[in-house]
Amino acid sequence: MPHIALGNEAPGIIGLFEYRPETARPMSALAEVLLRGENALPRGDRELIAAYVSALNDCRFCYNSHAAFAAAQLPEGMDLVEQVRADLGGAPISAKLRALLMIAGAVQESGRKVAEEHIAAARDAGASDVEIHDAVLIAAAFCMYNRYVDGLAALTPDDPADYAVMAQFIVAAGYVRDEA
Amino acid sequence: MPHIALGNEAPGIIGLFEYRPETARPMSALAEVLLRGENALPRGDRELIAAYVSALNDCRFCYNSHAAFAAAQLPEGMDLVEQVRADLGGAPISAKLRALLMIAGAVQESGRKVAEEHIAAARDAGASDVEIHDAVLIAAAFCMYNRYVDGLAALTPDDPADYAVMAQFIVAAGYVRDEA
Repeated sequence: MPHIALGNEAPGIIGLFEYRPETARPMSALAEVLLRGENALPRGDRELIAAYVSALNDCRFCYNSHAAFAAAQLPEGMDLVEQVRADLGGAPISAKLRALLMIAGAVQESGRKVAEEHIAAARDAGASDVEIHDAVLIAAAFCMYNRYVDGLAALTPDDPADYAVMAQFIVAAGYVRDEA
Repeated sequence: MPHIALGNEAPGIIGLFEYRPETARPMSALAEVLLRGENALPRGDRELIAAYVSALNDCRFCYNSHAAFAAAQLPEGMDLVEQVRADLGGAPISAKLRALLMIAGAVQESGRKVAEEHIAAARDAGASDVEIHDAVLIAAAFCMYNRYVDGLAALTPDDPADYAVMAQFIVAAGYVRDEA
């Protein structure tokens, strides 16, 4: 049960967004730019970064959600998402994506953990400055979303089907809701 | 020196915002709602939460900035900000603000660290659900801003006068910039 009375039973961050639309608007807009906006990084790769950081933060709602959103937009599907989570070093991904995920993992610990070596490895693997910027900011943003969801003990469905339904919706329509 | 070529020499998050205005817009809008929007919690108290979390995350730019913004909006000024940072238990603040800062400190570690006891203590001290919500989200959001600034090694001025100038500007005009 959530720590505060939300007045709705929507799962996870959706329930929090309904409770406080004033903060939901910029938070949704940020997710839309970072995860779906114009970008050299494919949407599936960006969702994979979001899922990876959510796993490191042990946020079950956000991991299940963004794992489903990544799987729906990656040719290799959920198997790859789970492989990255279980063994980033061994997962069959490009050197560039691996280096960006390593940066994201450092950011999850602390911004101060990102070292010149992380940046050099990403550059050597072909990452642009904007891609490095966006990997850092996606990781930082999920350190916010994850804490928001778990800090208020938002409802976390157990049934994977619930996340698959959300994935269809997000992939088709994005993060920004039209308000009535 | 920042990890990526920003093409500007603006300090801290300002330089990052100039580099990537697409993500700056929602991030500034979120800070404006959380720290300056209509709210039962005074702006000085909200900036104090931001400064406290930034200190826990060891983010020097964000701590210096929000400590200055808090000091400019609290009758007790910078002394109180430094007392809260050094000894939250002993600082001369209300029981409600102390309980909200304890929640923020838990969120800084992990959303999962917020316990029923934290929430009960805040309620007993008179905090409303919206105040609890906003304390959690301010803390979560600064776990993003702090990681963004340090994860890209943004420029961090040493001179306190630089932060005092920013404080005058923020207190007068807020976080959202008019774009040319």
